[in-house]
Amino acid sequence: MTIKEKLAVHAAEVEEFLGTCLKDRNIPQGLLESMEYSLLAGGKRLRPVLVLVWAKMLGMDSKAVMPFAASLELIHSYSLVHDDLPAMDDDDLRRGKPSNHKKFGEATAILAGDGLLTEAFGLMSRADAPAANVLRAMSIMSDAAGAGGMVGGQAVDMEYTGRDGVTLDELRTMHAMKTGALIFSACKCGAVLAATNEAAEEDIKRAEEYGRLIGVAFQIVDDVLDVVGDEQALGKPVGSDEEKGKTTYPSLIGLEESKALASKYVDEAVELLEPYSGEEADFLSELAQYIVDRVY
Amino acid sequence: MTIKEKLAVHAAEVEEFLGTCLKDRNIPQGLLESMEYSLLAGGKRLRPVLVLVWAKMLGMDSKAVMPFAASLELIHSYSLVHDDLPAMDDDDLRRGKPSNHKKFGEATAILAGDGLLTEAFGLMSRADAPAANVLRAMSIMSDAAGAGGMVGGQAVDMEYTGRDGVTLDELRTMHAMKTGALIFSACKCGAVLAATNEAAEEDIKRAEEYGRLIGVAFQIVDDVLDVVGDEQALGKPVGSDEEKGKTTYPSLIGLEESKALASKYVDEAVELLEPYSGEEADFLSELAQYIVDRVY
Repeated sequence: MTIKEKLAVHAAEVEEFLGTCLKDRNIPQGLLESMEYSLLAGGKRLRPVLVLVWAKMLGMDSKAVMPFAASLELIHSYSLVHDDLPAMDDDDLRRGKPSNHKKFGEATAILAGDGLLTEAFGLMSRADAPAANVLRAMSIMSDAAGAGGMVGGQAVDMEYTGRDGVTLDELRTMHAMKTGALIFSACKCGAVLAATNEAAEEDIKRAEEYGRLIGVAFQIVDDVLDVVGDEQALGKPVGSDEEKGKTTYPSLIGLEESKALASKYVDEAVELLEPYSGEEADFLSELAQYIVDRVY
Repeated sequence: MTIKEKLAVHAAEVEEFLGTCLKDRNIPQGLLESMEYSLLAGGKRLRPVLVLVWAKMLGMDSKAVMPFAASLELIHSYSLVHDDLPAMDDDDLRRGKPSNHKKFGEATAILAGDGLLTEAFGLMSRADAPAANVLRAMSIMSDAAGAGGMVGGQAVDMEYTGRDGVTLDELRTMHAMKTGALIFSACKCGAVLAATNEAAEEDIKRAEEYGRLIGVAFQIVDDVLDVVGDEQALGKPVGSDEEKGKTTYPSLIGLEESKALASKYVDEAVELLEPYSGEEADFLSELAQYIVDRVY
């Protein structure tokens, strides 16, 4: 199987869980429709898959961590709904369909996002892992998704948009918060949930570092594809980031150096997997490689 | 001390914790200002106090549960920020000051709300109580605050606004979701956090029931005060609920019967406290009574 096919198999497991997780939760019908519209709109389900595979590689049953893994997709999904709002990025389309507020109205979109975010923490709390591990993972996720992570990154991104003179360091920090935090925390939480003894701290460190590296690589590649024009593959709505006045890696260090940087990070991520073997280790290695392959 | 004074003493403890809980959390400055603007805008801090007092009455140290207790104020605060948005209730004022989006802009207000909600679950995860108790309480809070609770209640409230023929049952269910869920869950979570053996399930049930009763009574009294005109005491911004086309208890069952109903619920709540004695039991009894005293 190619990595794309392997990813699709994992994504299908996540998809099945996502399709049922909001049922029988006493959610008013109109609000439920709006939440499921965005949650079930497809996507690679990369974040949940990272939780599942890291946890499984370290000895944890996939079913046990599925609620926790799926919660990351609820968080990712809510962030897209709120980011698309007129007061934010004002996007009418998301993955080729009307964005949530275009379909259901702004008020419902705001509430759907709030509902998805809140439900995410409910799902996490019901993961079938040692209670202390679950609590630690929830604290990590709150940091990653919150005002010091993803939400803060979005605030900084809006502040930078249209501003000249954004430096490489500023760009890196902004992306680390906005998109990187959720990706490295997915890997880290997989390892935290599976932890059984003190030696697990080494695994947790490697998971976090692997996640940080592929997160940055992923962002650089997104910027590169934005320039070389692979809008379709990314499912981007309208207008490139450059057109929107956003600073990107290619605009700061050029296209070739951007590609080289992404490759370097991916190589480092793959090296971190050396202590591990088997199906999951192969998957994580191929996944890292797949990120940069998209631009070559 | 009067109950108002006792409440103020507890509120001051909560206030002190709230004043520091967002510091050193890596939150971008502008976003932090917006979050603290709403979080530290005063208020009775009723929800955190209910967590603290129920936990303490059942043998738990207040300091240990403070992060969890305070998280309810972050949730309450985020809900007010989002409810005030132009697409929602469109309120320019909150407690006599410009609402969050009037002061910081809509985008920042949306993100400040998202940040407060996410941080709330981080605080909960750091409560110093048995891990299994904390997880159970977090699951309860997610249900209470989410799309099947507070967020869903807001969606239903907007659907009912301006609609004729809302029944008493519909009104009751909407309020139970929108405001009741957070109040009864505050009491319930205090008892859950303090639970040490199976007998605690009886305490948890009583805490939940007490919370449900004072929650309804509180809502009825709010509706009554809206009619008899105590805008100042409630800190309501502009226009009564009636003027906004909202169905209220007095509009459905009349002013006198509304008052009688609130009194009945408060009496039932006080009865539930019979097995308990001491400072905390007295406080909870006086607090329930205080709710209806406001209308007499």
